[in-house]
Order: sequence, then C-alpha cells, then structure tokens
Amino acid sequence: MSATPTDLDHVATTAAAAAVSWAATPPRERARALVAAADALDSAAAELIAIAEEETGLTTARLTGELKRTTVQLRMFADIVVDGGYLDVRIDAADPDFVLGPRPDLRRYLVPVGPVLNFAASNFPFAFSVAGGDTASALAAGCSVIVKAHSGHPRLSVRTGEVAAGALEAAGAPAGVLQVVSGQQAGLALLKDERIAAGSFTGSIRVGRMLADIAATRPVPIPFFGELGSVNPAFVTARALAERAEQIADGLVTSVSGSAGQLCTKPGFVFTPRGGALSGLVAERVQAAEHRLLNPSITAGYADRRESILATPGVEVVAGGGLRVDADGQGWATPTVVSVPAATLVAERERLLDEAFGPLTVLVEYDEAESLSELADMLFEGNLTGTVHAGDDEDSPQLRSLIDWIAGHAGRVLFGGWPTGVAVTAAQQHGGPWPATTNDSGTSVGGAAITRFLRPVAYQGVPQRLLPEPLRDDNPWGVPQRRTPAGDSPSWGEAYLSA
Amino acid sequence: MSATPTDLDHVATTAAAAAVSWAATPPRERARALVAAADALDSAAAELIAIAEEETGLTTARLTGELKRTTVQLRMFADIVVDGGYLDVRIDAADPDFVLGPRPDLRRYLVPVGPVLNFAASNFPFAFSVAGGDTASALAAGCSVIVKAHSGHPRLSVRTGEVAAGALEAAGAPAGVLQVVSGQQAGLALLKDERIAAGSFTGSIRVGRMLADIAATRPVPIPFFGELGSVNPAFVTARALAERAEQIADGLVTSVSGSAGQLCTKPGFVFTPRGGALSGLVAERVQAAEHRLLNPSITAGYADRRESILATPGVEVVAGGGLRVDADGQGWATPTVVSVPAATLVAERERLLDEAFGPLTVLVEYDEAESLSELADMLFEGNLTGTVHAGDDEDSPQLRSLIDWIAGHAGRVLFGGWPTGVAVTAAQQHGGPWPATTNDSGTSVGGAAITRFLRPVAYQGVPQRLLPEPLRDDNPWGVPQRRTPAGDSPSWGEAYLSA
Repeated sequence: MSATPTDLDHVATTAAAAAVSWAATPPRERARALVAAADALDSAAAELIAIAEEETGLTTARLTGELKRTTVQLRMFADIVVDGGYLDVRIDAADPDFVLGPRPDLRRYLVPVGPVLNFAASNFPFAFSVAGGDTASALAAGCSVIVKAHSGHPRLSVRTGEVAAGALEAAGAPAGVLQVVSGQQAGLALLKDERIAAGSFTGSIRVGRMLADIAATRPVPIPFFGELGSVNPAFVTARALAERAEQIADGLVTSVSGSAGQLCTKPGFVFTPRGGALSGLVAERVQAAEHRLLNPSITAGYADRRESILATPGVEVVAGGGLRVDADGQGWATPTVVSVPAATLVAERERLLDEAFGPLTVLVEYDEAESLSELADMLFEGNLTGTVHAGDDEDSPQLRSLIDWIAGHAGRVLFGGWPTGVAVTAAQQHGGPWPATTNDSGTSVGGAAITRFLRPVAYQGVPQRLLPEPLRDDNPWGVPQRRTPAGDSPSWGEAYLSA
Repeated sequence: MSATPTDLDHVATTAAAAAVSWAATPPRERARALVAAADALDSAAAELIAIAEEETGLTTARLTGELKRTTVQLRMFADIVVDGGYLDVRIDAADPDFVLGPRPDLRRYLVPVGPVLNFAASNFPFAFSVAGGDTASALAAGCSVIVKAHSGHPRLSVRTGEVAAGALEAAGAPAGVLQVVSGQQAGLALLKDERIAAGSFTGSIRVGRMLADIAATRPVPIPFFGELGSVNPAFVTARALAERAEQIADGLVTSVSGSAGQLCTKPGFVFTPRGGALSGLVAERVQAAEHRLLNPSITAGYADRRESILATPGVEVVAGGGLRVDADGQGWATPTVVSVPAATLVAERERLLDEAFGPLTVLVEYDEAESLSELADMLFEGNLTGTVHAGDDEDSPQLRSLIDWIAGHAGRVLFGGWPTGVAVTAAQQHGGPWPATTNDSGTSVGGAAITRFLRPVAYQGVPQRLLPEPLRDDNPWGVPQRRTPAGDSPSWGEAYLSA
C-alpha cells in the first residue's frame, strides 16, 4: 500500500509477470481460483462487513447484500470462463475455391490485454472496489489486476486484497495476480506505466475525465473504461399516475433514499404531470431517519449541490430533509425532494442539472402539451439509465419517441421500475454515452463486462500442434467454435433479395 | 466536395438525420441496399478502374481484384446484417427467485453509434476508401458514413461516392447515408463536430495519432479506429530454409514487390539464418520492372527511408533496385532488398526500424545462438502481423516462444505464408497493438469489423409491443437470441470444482 517509485515499479513488474502466467492458465483452473476467492470472501464476511460499516457508514443489510453480490459476481465470471463463449472463436477453413482467390485456414479468438489498473469507487466498498466487478471481469479475462484503493475505505481495501489475493494464489494463481495500492500519486504513476494495458474507474466526471485523458495521450494509448456521472431521468405519464400513483411514490422514495442516495443509478430528475398526486404522496413517504454520508468529501459536494438547488428561484420543497455536518466534516442526511416546473428546469439548467450525489431528487412538473422526448433532448447528455412509468396498455407516438430518445442516450431503458439495484446477469448493461462513461462500448456490470479486457488475435495456417487450445480442432477446452467451412460461401444477397 | 463551414454543417446535419432512419431500417432492406451498392460498383467497374489506374498508378489486375474484394465485402456485410448474430442479443427472463433477489426481465443488444467519419487510405483506392471496409462495416452496423476522400485519388472518390450513394438511396436508404468530403480542414472540422459519433482511419502513424488525440480530447470523446504503421516481421528458421528455400524466396519477392510494396502488411524485416541461401535466391528473383508509386508524398517518404537504410553502416545490398523521380516528384521504383546482421539492426534500430512504405525489405541475418523471440522483443512494438516459416514438423520451446511473442504483439500470426493479401472472411483480424492501430480491440477487415460501430443498450421490464424487434419473443427478424431462463442460475463452480 506504499507508493514510492521503487515499490510501484515492483508492483508493475509483478503484475506484468503474473499477467503472462495467468493468461496461460487453463479455464477450469482460472475458474477454480475465482471461486476460491469468492469462498474466502464469504468466509470472512463478518470481519469485512464490520470494517466496511465503520469506514463507510453504510448499513449492515446493504453491506451484506453487496458482499453477496460481489461473490456471486466472481462465481458468475468463473462460469463464463469455463463456458468459453466469451472467446468469440471463429474458424474459417482453408478454401482453394474462395471467390476472392484461395483462402488460408484462419482462426480468431480473444486474448487478455495484460495488466489492468482498476480505480475503486467510494460508494461500493465491495462490488466496485478491490474484488468488485472490474476486478472480477479482468481476472476472468486472464488479466492481472492492480487496484488503486479508494481513500474512503482503506482498511477494508487492504483486508479484502489480502483475503482475495491469498485465496487466488492458494488456488494456484500466480503471485501478484491481484495487488492493491493506495494514493492518488500511485494511481497516476501506474496509469502512465508502459506495463499497464487498460484502466477502469468508477467515480466523478472530473477525475474520470482527467484519467481518461492520461490514458489516451500516453506514448502508447490504452483503453480506459470510466463510469462517471449520471442523473438517470425518469418519466411518469398521466395514465401511469392515474393507475398506480402510490406504488410509484413508494418505489421512488425507496430508490432515492437507499444507501443515502449515493448510487450512480439514483433517479435524479422525475418528470411528473403538473398538479398530479406524486409530490404529495412522496412527501408522506419520506422517512426522517438520518443516514451517514460516505465521507467528508462527498458531504461537501452534496451540501453544495443541495444548497444551489434549494436556492434556485422556482424550486419548491416537497420534503425538506436535512443535512447535519459534524465538526470533522462528516455529514448525516435525510432525503430532500424538491419540485420545479419543466420550463424552469430548462431555464435554470446550468444551476440545476448536475448530479447531486446523495438523497435528493427533483420532481419536474410538465404540462400535457409538453413533449417529454423534446424536454429530455433539451436537457440531458448521456446517462446510465432512463426510466418510463406508463399506463398498463399505454402506447402512442409520443411514448415511442421517449423510449427511442432514452435508448439513444442511455445504456439501460427501464419500464415500470427504478434504476437502482443493478442485476448481475448476462444481459445487464451498466454504461452509456458520455458523461455516463468514457467509453460506451463497455459495461461494468454483467457478463459482457469481460469483453473490455480482451483483444482479438488471428492465427493463419498454423499447425494444430502449435495452435492455442480454443482454436484447435480437437477443442480440448470444449469452447464454442463458429466455423465457416470451405465451399460455404456467403449467399451475398441471393437468399433475401428474392424474398 | 467543398469544405466551407456552411457546407460541412449541412453534411453533418444530413448525416445525423440519415443515421436515425438508417438505424431504423429493417435488416433485409439494409442488406438489399448494400447489395445494390455492390452491384452498381461492379457495373461501373470499367469506368472506375480506369480512373483509379490513372490516379494511383496501380495495375489493372490489382485494381480489378481490389474492386471485386470491395464489392464482395459489401455483400458479406449484407449477409451479416441479415444473420443478426452481430447484435449479440441476450435475454434474461424475469426471475423472482434469483440468488441476489428478484430479477427483472432484461434484454440487451447492440445499436449503431451514429454518424461515422471515415478517413480513406491512399493505397487502397477501393477497399479502404469511399466504399471500402470501414464504410461497409459502418453502413452494415446501421450508421451513416461521411468519407473524407484521400487526396491521392480525388476523381475516383467523387465518382465512387456517386455510384455507391446513388445505389444505396435508389434501394431505399435515406439521403445522405453516404457522403464524401475532401480536404484536411474538412476532415478535422468534422472530427470535432458533436454530431460525429466515431472515426476510422487508415494511414500514417503521425496523422493517425493526431486524429486519435483529437477524438479522445473532444468535449465528448468518441471512439477512433486508426490503422497506422506496421513493419510485419517474418522469421525463417534453419529447418524451413533447408526444406524449401526457393519457395520462401518466391513468396517473399512476390509479397514485397506487389503493389510496389505499398501495403500495410508488407513484410519489412525478414529474419533468416546467417550465411543461408535466402539472400542469393531473393537476388535472383527480384524483377527489374518499374512500378509507379502512388503519389509524390509517398515517393518522398520512401526516398528518405530508402536512403537512410542504404547509408547505414553494416547494411549490404542484396538487390539494389532503384527509385527514379520525375520532375513533378512522382516516383518509379524497382524492389530494393538489403541485409543486415541482427546485432547491427539492434544497434542501429533508431535509423533502421521505421516502416519503409514501398518495395523494400530488410533481411536480418541471425546466428543459431540468438533467440528470435528475444530479438523481436528488443526491436519491435505492435504490428498488424508476424510471420513464421518453420520446418514441416518443427517444434521447440524457442519456436513456441516466438509464436507467443507474435501473438502478444500483433493481430495476426502467420505460418508458412506471407502477410499481404488479407482474406475478407469471418475470422480475419486486421489490427494490432499500438502503433499498428490506435485501438486494438477492433479489426478493419473481416466480419468482426462491424462491432466497432455499435454500443450496447439493455431494456428492463419493457412490454413486448414497445421492444425493438431483435429483443421481442416473437423475434420477427429471426436473429440469434441467447436466453437465460428463470431458475437457470449459473452453476457457480459446482460443475467443474468437482471435476
């Protein structure tokens, strides 16, 4: 966890050596090591959760669920490694009669990029930190990982690293396959190190952009997957409100209040028909219980945003909430809900639109004549999510335009739910256009997250004995192989031009 | 083809509008339009090839093959669009009993990123230009395309654009789905335009790096796929030379001479055992016929590199070749082959290692005691390809190390062939670590090229009637759908931990 140049050089050297042998580790062994890490973290749950609670102020229930999510995530990636579909194996048989002239035997698959530097998040001390999704997906891909620990939970980071790395190595993974460093200078120095092959990050737009720029402008540029800011607009139609206003209010209050709103998918702007029931129902439901904020830095940022929003003309308080700040800068918050006319939000966008990272949401009251997709287009850049609450059988060109707008500006389109609580599954997409992420081709949650840390290599005319296992005809790893046999020229339109 | 700010604004506006309707065009219609463009280009072959010959000096045979490759490429992508596997559709059924709590219905696929700006290449007036691989893959993905024409073949670019865009639009594609602009300033202005969603490029390291830096440091960064420089090292073992020296010499001379060596996959450094037969056999085979170089700028660059190499102490001429330069700077070249001891190449790497874009190759003579993988590691950065010529049943730790080194530093590993002549097939990989490309997750040739211009979107809990076609249960487009049913929890190690 120290950060002298000599230490960092050793960390990078170790990561580079570990990357070579870990990439060459057969899938079942790699998977066993991931499962061993999950088992070890589960076994250490009581100890780890106690440290996390002390360092982050998150509740036991939340941290228990988050650690389970983290270990399930490691086990899911173990399955993905063994399945081998993520390797995208393509095999073209040699074809002397190919339309463009004789074609060689050509076999392509994805290989690990090399050591990955992962900047951990403040708000998920398990699931987006030392043994979280970025680490799990990079390890699954066959990359070694260096985690730059978040300063908000330093002891937990060290201990998680010891438990996870110890289990990985005891299960046969190379020494240094997972390392933890701390300190901004260490993170910056490693991001510039020529041995680092890719970066990942979860945090603010300001820091994420700075790191992405460093990654892109290195002498050898590297891919950088930063998950940054999102205000997650939600849109409630008049029919949805008529059908189930109480259910919508329940869900919204839960989504905004949980983890004191310190979630990147918290709904920040909720469009609701002017004069509708939502604000009253929300006001009834907001609980007065204080929740500790993660740390003084997040407290200060939240206090600024909250004050700026409350001081904006046209903003009305629905549930005032509160923010109490200790002498040491540590904050304690109760949820704040405000409302504002859509026209005011448009006029005051400079003041109102930034993400408020904490338990605050803005109800945006719109008139029937206003187009939700046009409002959205005027107001928002890229987001992780966009949510629609519509009537049960509602359908209209306006509704379809709104869904299309969300799909064009977010990574996930939700209907009838709330964006917090991101399922760890094959089809999850946690990403989105800038500034939701620095690179919207990836996801940091779900099975597809592994693809970020791979690059393609093709083998042409290489004898069977010298091919990597996934490309061999005897397929010793049993991975899916997509084959184009000789003579199997594409139809080139014949099949569907006549249809 | 003009480039005033007003014109460029119109081009970008048109591309943005076309992107919306092209993305919404059903796959069979999109495929039909691609096939129509291929048909139109094939019909205009005589006219196009005549212009290309005049503007580039490439031979009729080469240009005929290149145009065919270009239209086959469009047809291949038409098939890929109809197949729909590239959409990577994943469907997780809702599952109330999921291990991490109730899981919503979640469906993910890939959508087009939006307008793509493609900087065309000098050396492939068809296959990497207006209707080339970058354009074909971006159109197939559902993106509109603006091509910044290469100044080396301006009339061909205009005419190809007219033929291809005309056919696309006559087949129902939106107006402006494919546009052509010219001039460096136009290219730079569009790359900075907020409506452009991705860039592609084939050309020099210097220009590619400049463009990649612009793309990365825009207020909204965009992905940029540049294919830049490559010296394509090849390695001939003593056993290979003993078994088939003449065949190796034949192939090498053909690969270096074709298209006057102006190919990004031309083998630039060929390692061969010291005192072996290769240089003598190559000297016998090199033809004295002159080939025009593409343009004065490439002539000047080639002249510089060639003179620098010939003037380096320790470099011996195997086949002197020549370079004749007209008064207007246009060059005419015959192949130049030199040899140098491996130790000299290491010592003079600063002078010798840059790509010589023209008909020149360096035979690198190594001693039996020298390790090819260690030499390669000392000398080379990322490459598009690396080639091995080994004996028929040759196998050794050294040979395996060499193959591993190539796989770690190149996009394609070849055995017993030569890297020029890149097959357009499903398993092709034309890319590689920096400086071969700016982004080694992509390929600019082959079926996987489409993936560069897509981004994922997930739909959560969205009713069937409002889902995009590929995600619906009735699957009207008949695309592959990977499903995770409810209750089908991953094995999480049970299956292989006991094995």
